[in-house]
Amino acid sequence: MKKKVLVCITARPSYSRIRTAILALNDNPEVEVLVLASGSALLDRYGRVVDLIRKDGIEVVEELHTFVEGNDLIGMALTTASTIEATSRAIVRISPDIVVTIADRYETLGTAVAASYCGFPLAHIQGGEITGNIDERVRHAVTKLSDIHLVANSDCKERIIRMGEDESNIFITGCPSLDIVHESNELDIEDVNEAVSLSGVGAEFDINKKFIVVMQHPETDSYDKSYDRMIKTLEAVDAIGIPPLIFWPNVDAGSDATSKAIRVMRERGVLKNARYIKNLESKLFLKLLSLCHCLVGNSSVGIRESSFMGVPTVNIGRRQDGRQSSDNVMYVGWDSNQIKNAIDHQIQNGKYEISNIYGDGFSGKKIADILMQDHFSESKRFVD
Amino acid sequence: MKKKVLVCITARPSYSRIRTAILALNDNPEVEVLVLASGSALLDRYGRVVDLIRKDGIEVVEELHTFVEGNDLIGMALTTASTIEATSRAIVRISPDIVVTIADRYETLGTAVAASYCGFPLAHIQGGEITGNIDERVRHAVTKLSDIHLVANSDCKERIIRMGEDESNIFITGCPSLDIVHESNELDIEDVNEAVSLSGVGAEFDINKKFIVVMQHPETDSYDKSYDRMIKTLEAVDAIGIPPLIFWPNVDAGSDATSKAIRVMRERGVLKNARYIKNLESKLFLKLLSLCHCLVGNSSVGIRESSFMGVPTVNIGRRQDGRQSSDNVMYVGWDSNQIKNAIDHQIQNGKYEISNIYGDGFSGKKIADILMQDHFSESKRFVD
Amino acid sequence: MKKKVLVCITARPSYSRIRTAILALNDNPEVEVLVLASGSALLDRYGRVVDLIRKDGIEVVEELHTFVEGNDLIGMALTTASTIEATSRAIVRISPDIVVTIADRYETLGTAVAASYCGFPLAHIQGGEITGNIDERVRHAVTKLSDIHLVANSDCKERIIRMGEDESNIFITGCPSLDIVHESNELDIEDVNEAVSLSGVGAEFDINKKFIVVMQHPETDSYDKSYDRMIKTLEAVDAIGIPPLIFWPNVDAGSDATSKAIRVMRERGVLKNARYIKNLESKLFLKLLSLCHCLVGNSSVGIRESSFMGVPTVNIGRRQDGRQSSDNVMYVGWDSNQIKNAIDHQIQNGKYEISNIYGDGFSGKKIADILMQDHFSESKRFVD
Amino acid sequence: MKKKVLVCITARPSYSRIRTAILALNDNPEVEVLVLASGSALLDRYGRVVDLIRKDGIEVVEELHTFVEGNDLIGMALTTASTIEATSRAIVRISPDIVVTIADRYETLGTAVAASYCGFPLAHIQGGEITGNIDERVRHAVTKLSDIHLVANSDCKERIIRMGEDESNIFITGCPSLDIVHESNELDIEDVNEAVSLSGVGAEFDINKKFIVVMQHPETDSYDKSYDRMIKTLEAVDAIGIPPLIFWPNVDAGSDATSKAIRVMRERGVLKNARYIKNLESKLFLKLLSLCHCLVGNSSVGIRESSFMGVPTVNIGRRQDGRQSSDNVMYVGWDSNQIKNAIDHQIQNGKYEISNIYGDGFSGKKIADILMQDHFSESKRFVD
Repeated sequence: MKKKVLVCITARPSYSRIRTAILALNDNPEVEVLVLASGSALLDRYGRVVDLIRKDGIEVVEELHTFVEGNDLIGMALTTASTIEATSRAIVRISPDIVVTIADRYETLGTAVAASYCGFPLAHIQGGEITGNIDERVRHAVTKLSDIHLVANSDCKERIIRMGEDESNIFITGCPSLDIVHESNELDIEDVNEAVSLSGVGAEFDINKKFIVVMQHPETDSYDKSYDRMIKTLEAVDAIGIPPLIFWPNVDAGSDATSKAIRVMRERGVLKNARYIKNLESKLFLKLLSLCHCLVGNSSVGIRESSFMGVPTVNIGRRQDGRQSSDNVMYVGWDSNQIKNAIDHQIQNGKYEISNIYGDGFSGKKIADILMQDHFSESKRFVD
Repeated sequence: MKKKVLVCITARPSYSRIRTAILALNDNPEVEVLVLASGSALLDRYGRVVDLIRKDGIEVVEELHTFVEGNDLIGMALTTASTIEATSRAIVRISPDIVVTIADRYETLGTAVAASYCGFPLAHIQGGEITGNIDERVRHAVTKLSDIHLVANSDCKERIIRMGEDESNIFITGCPSLDIVHESNELDIEDVNEAVSLSGVGAEFDINKKFIVVMQHPETDSYDKSYDRMIKTLEAVDAIGIPPLIFWPNVDAGSDATSKAIRVMRERGVLKNARYIKNLESKLFLKLLSLCHCLVGNSSVGIRESSFMGVPTVNIGRRQDGRQSSDNVMYVGWDSNQIKNAIDHQIQNGKYEISNIYGDGFSGKKIADILMQDHFSESKRFVD
Repeated sequence: MKKKVLVCITARPSYSRIRTAILALNDNPEVEVLVLASGSALLDRYGRVVDLIRKDGIEVVEELHTFVEGNDLIGMALTTASTIEATSRAIVRISPDIVVTIADRYETLGTAVAASYCGFPLAHIQGGEITGNIDERVRHAVTKLSDIHLVANSDCKERIIRMGEDESNIFITGCPSLDIVHESNELDIEDVNEAVSLSGVGAEFDINKKFIVVMQHPETDSYDKSYDRMIKTLEAVDAIGIPPLIFWPNVDAGSDATSKAIRVMRERGVLKNARYIKNLESKLFLKLLSLCHCLVGNSSVGIRESSFMGVPTVNIGRRQDGRQSSDNVMYVGWDSNQIKNAIDHQIQNGKYEISNIYGDGFSGKKIADILMQDHFSESKRFVD
Repeated sequence: MKKKVLVCITARPSYSRIRTAILALNDNPEVEVLVLASGSALLDRYGRVVDLIRKDGIEVVEELHTFVEGNDLIGMALTTASTIEATSRAIVRISPDIVVTIADRYETLGTAVAASYCGFPLAHIQGGEITGNIDERVRHAVTKLSDIHLVANSDCKERIIRMGEDESNIFITGCPSLDIVHESNELDIEDVNEAVSLSGVGAEFDINKKFIVVMQHPETDSYDKSYDRMIKTLEAVDAIGIPPLIFWPNVDAGSDATSKAIRVMRERGVLKNARYIKNLESKLFLKLLSLCHCLVGNSSVGIRESSFMGVPTVNIGRRQDGRQSSDNVMYVGWDSNQIKNAIDHQIQNGKYEISNIYGDGFSGKKIADILMQDHFSESKRFVD
C-alpha cells in the first residue's frame, strides 16, 4: 500500500517553502502525497495559492475555510481555533501515515495540535530558527508537538536538541524554497516581464531596467504601527527614484493597515513609477528577485532566498531578528532616512557572494527521502 | 489601580495546583484575582470544581462551556479549539494584567494560545517536568508560549533554560498543591469520614481502619486499552482484600472506558468493600491521603503530594514516566500480579520519609508574590 | 450516475424515524444512500446508534463529533453551532443530490442551515406537527429552510401550506417509525427478554409478566425542574408496584438532572423491581412496547407509535402539547397522585383500538419513492 | 431596575434599519440599551459601522469577531455557526430582558438561535416580507424562532399570522430606516458633498449637479454570476454618461466578484466620471439619495427608502422579487440595454409621489414603545 503523506498549506508563502519536496514525493510511485489547504491559501485577496498547487499537478484533498477576519490580534486566535477544528476532522478522515507542517505562521500551531492530539506522526519543516514576534513562540511550540524535524542548518538542529528533542529525529535538509532557483535560472526574462505586466496594477514595468522589490509585512506584536511603518518605507523608496515593484502583505494582524498605506500613497500620486502586485508563481518570483537591484522590507525572503542568490537586501525592523543571515543583508530601523541610505548603499554594492546557510538548492529531494522513512507518533519525552 | 490577575481553570485537578496562590492573591488588597472557568471544571459529571472555587470566596468571572464530548482523541482537539475561541474572547474582554495557566492538560494549550496570541503576559505553573503521553508535548509547548515560568524545582528550571527561555523569567516556587497539607493536618478525621460517606456510592467506609486509595486515569496515547487496564488494577486491589476508596477518572480520551470498567466490576459484585467517589475538597482529600495505607494508580498525586507526606505509592504504567520521584513510589507495569505484589510490599513498608522535591508547603505565597511583580508580553526570543 | 441521498442522523431517536425509508433507498440500485452521523448518535452514554445503523448495512459516511457538553441551555446553542460548522463542510465535500433531515431536535436546525445555505436541496421529515418547548420553534424554522416536506398527515400538510410553502412540495407519507411494527410483530418474546436482560442494570425482568415502561425527557424550557419531575414520576411508578422498565433520557438540557433522579432513587433502594436501560434496537423496543401494560412519561412514542399499537399511555406535562393524539393517551400534570391514578386507570382499561393518524406502517417506501424524484434548491418564495 | 434591551447588529445596513428605535430607547431613563456588534459591522473593509454606533452615543457592549472569510456559500454557513457560538455566550453573560434582531441577513439566523435556545425573549424587526435568495428562507425561519414581531405593514402582519404566530405578538410599526429622512432633510447639501469628497476614491464629484447612485449586491443563489452582472450594470451606467456614485457591495457570497468588477472597470479607464464609496452615515446617504436622479442596482433601499422619497429606481434582477413596491420602481433583467433604457426613462420621469407602504417616518418611536412592554419567551405553539 502506498504511503500517505498529508501536507498542510495554510498560506501563500508556505507552499514555496515545501514545493520541491512535494513534487519529489509526487514523482515517487510508492507515495500518495495530498495537500490539505486552508486559511489564506484559499482567498482571492491573497492570491489563492491553492490554484497554483493544483496547476503543479498536486492533489488538494480538501479546502478548509478557516480564516476568521478581523484586523485584531484576536483574529489570529480565532483562526487558529478554526484551523484545529477543521484540520483535526480532516486528518482523522484522511488517516495519513504522516502529517507535514511548515514553518511558523500563527495558524500552523493549529495544524500541529490537530495532528499530534489525534495521534498522527508530525513532521515540522524549518524549526529551530530564531526571529521575533509571535512567530518565534509558534515555531518552538510546534517543535515540541512534532515527531520529526527537518531543519535548514546545524544551528537549528543544535537548538532543537537543546529543547529536549531526540537527536535521531532531527534532519538537516536545507530549505526547499531555495530549490526553485534552479528552475528559475532557466526562465526567460520576458516571461517574467509578461507575468508582471499581466498581474497587479500601477505603472508599466520593465525588469530589464534597474528596479527595486518591496516586501513588507506587519510585525504582529506592534500591529498598530503597521500603517506608519509602511508609509516610511514607501517614502524612502520614493526618494530613491528607481521604479519599485511593491508586493501586498501577507494575511496577518496589521495587514489591512499595511495595505491601506499602499493605497493611500497611491492615491496621493506618490510613487508614480511603482507597480503593485499580489502574488507571482515562485519560480517567476525568484527570477525577478535575482534581477532586482535591492530587496527592501522585512520578508524572510531577504534573509533566506536572497542569501543564496546574493541579492542586496535592506531589512527593516525586528521581524527577522535572530535569524541567521549572510553578508547580503543590511539591518535598519523604522526611519525613512536610514532606509533610503541603506538602499543607496546596497545598490552601489551590487550582487553579493552566494551563501549556502539555508541550503544548497537540493533540499526538496532530501526532505522527500526522509518523509518516506517510517516515523511513529510515540510517547516522546524530553531528552535530558 | 488594582492589578488584575486572571487564572484559567479548565479542570478539577488544576484548581488544587494553584489554590493557595489564588487565596494569597485574594488577600492582597492591591490585586483583583479572577478565575476563568471552562471545560470539565463546569461539569456535574466531574464534580463541578467551579462551585468549590466560589465557596473559597474567589470570583469566577465567567463560565465557558468548551467541552466537546467524544471518547476519541479528536475530542481533545475539538475541546482545545473551543477553549481558544471562548478564552480569547474572554481575555480580550477582561483585559487582565497577567494570565495564569496551570500544568499540562491538553486544553491548557488552548488557554496559552489565547493569551499569547492576544498579546497578554502569560505565566505558566509547573513547566519543565517530564511525564509521558500528550501531556509531555503540551507542557513544553505551553512553556514556549509563556512569558514567565513558576516551577517546582531546580531540575525543571534547568530544562526550561535549555529550551531557550530567559533565566530571569524562571522562578522556583515549589508546587502549591502541597500547601494544602498544612490545612489538612488540622482537620478532624471524622469530618473526612463524614464527607466520604456523604459523597459517592458503594460500601460503608471508615478511614479509621486500614484502607487503600485508587486513582487511575487513562493514558491518552493508548486510550483503547483503558478498560482492560482498569480491570487489572481493580482485580489486584480486590485480591488484597483491604477496603479501597476508588476515584472516578478525569475527563480525557479513554475516561469513559475507565469508568465503564468500574461499573462493570461493581455490577459483577466484585469489590463489595469498595466505595466510589467523584471528588473531594482538596484539604479533605489530603487528610484522607495521609491516612491511607497505599495509593494505587497513575495519578501525579502519588509522585507529588505523596512524596511530601511519605505515602506509600504503587504507580502503574507510563503516565508519570520521567517525572522526578522520591522513595515512596514503586513503579510497576499493567499486570495484576505485579500490582498486587507491589501493594503488599508498600503496605508492609508503611510511611516513608518526607521529601521536599516538590516544595516546602509554602509555594502559594511565593507564586502570589512573583505574580504581583510587573511582567510584560514582549517580543521574546530563544536565548542561545 | 447514482442519485446520492445524504441523511443527517444527530441522535438516537432520529434513526428509528427514518430507518425503513433508508433501508428502502438502500435496496434501490439507482441510489447511493449515505448517513452523516453526529451529536449524541456517536456517544456511548446515549447508546451509539451509529453502530446500529452500520449493523443494518447502511454506509455511515462520516462521524462528526459536535456535542458540546453542558447541562445548560447554552449547550444546545453551542452544539448547534458545531453542527452547522461540521455538517456544512461535510455536505460540500460529499455534494449529495439531496439532504434529508428529521423532525425537530435542536441540533436539527444546524443540519438545515448547513444544507440550505450551501445550496443543496433539503427534505424535511415530520414537519407541520405541534408540540411544546424549543422543538416547536425548531421544527417550523426547519420547514422554512427546507425545499420539500414529508409529513405524517393532512393536518401537518395544511399547516405547512399556511406557512407559505408550495403545496406541490408537500407529501403526506405517514411516519416511518411505525413501519417497524411489522418487523417487530414477528419477533419472539424471548429474544426481547434476552435483550432486556443483557442491556441495562437493575432487577431481573420478565416481559411475559405485567410491566410498565417509563420514558421521560426533560422539557427544555424548564430544565431546572427536571430532577423534581423525574422524582415525582418514579414515586408514582413505585406506588403502583408493577415492575417498570426505565429508559435513560435523551441528550438535552436537563438530561443530567433526569439521570441523577434515577440514580438517587436507585441508591435510596426505591423501585427495587425496576430495570434501567439505555437503548434497545427499534424493533425489539416496539415488541416490548406492544406488550407493556402502560407507557408512562413524555416521549412522543406514547403519542405516535403507541397510537398505532393501542398501547395505554400516561403523558405527563407539556412536552407533547399540541401534537395530535388518539384515544390511547391520558394527559396529566406533574403530580405524583395524578400520575399514579392515571396509570391505574390505563392498566385497568387495557389495549385501545389501533389508529392510523401517524401512518399505516408503510411510510418508509413512500418517502424513498419521493426522495428518488428530482428536487432542486431553487430560489423559493412565500406563497401568498 | 432598568429594563435591559440588547440589539444585535451584524452588518452595516442593519444599523440604519433600527437606528431611530435605538436612539428613542436610549433617551428613555428606564431603559439600558446595548448593542452587540459582530460580523462585518466590525470590519474596515465594510466601513466599520460599529464606530458610527458609538458616535451616536450608543453603548456597544461587545465586539464579536465572527466573520469567516471565503467567497463561497460555505462562508455563510461558517459565519452563522460562529455567530451562534459567540452570541449565545454573550447573551447569557449579559442576560438582557429582551433581544432584538433585524431583518434577514444570513447570520441573523445565528443571533435568533442564540437568543431563543438560551431562553431569552426575541423581537424580530422586518419579518413577513417577501424577497428572493437565501434571505427569504432566513427571514421566515427567524420569525418562527421569535417571540414578537415588529413589521412594516399589514401585508407582513397577515403573513406572520398565517405562519402560526399569535396575532397579539405582531405589531405594525413601519420601517425605522425611513425615520432618518427627517434628519436628512435638514442637512446642508454641502455637508454631503464634503463627505462624498472625503470618503471613497475616483473622480471629483458635485451632488449639486445631475448624478446617479449605483448599489448592487450579489444574489446569493447565483454568486458565480456576480462579476458579469456588475459589468453589465456598469456598462449601462457608463453609456448614460451622467456621473455615478458607486457603492461597494455588502459582505456576501459573491461580493468579492462584484468588487472585482468595479476594480476591473476602473482599471480599464471606463467610467472616468465615477466616484467609488464604501459607506456613508445614514442621514448623509438619505440626503444624497433624495438628490440623485436615479438609483440603479438591486438594493432594498430602492424599494423601501426610495418609495418614501419618490426616488426613481431601476431594480435589476430577482433579489427584491416579491417585496412590495411603489410606483417609483422599474424592474429589469440582467441586460445592459434594458438597464440603460430603464435609467433613461426614470431620469426623464423625475421624482415620484411619496408612498407610506414602509412607514410614515416615525417607526423608531413605535418600536421603542413596544420593546418597553413586557414580553416573555414562553413555550409558544403554532396557532391553528
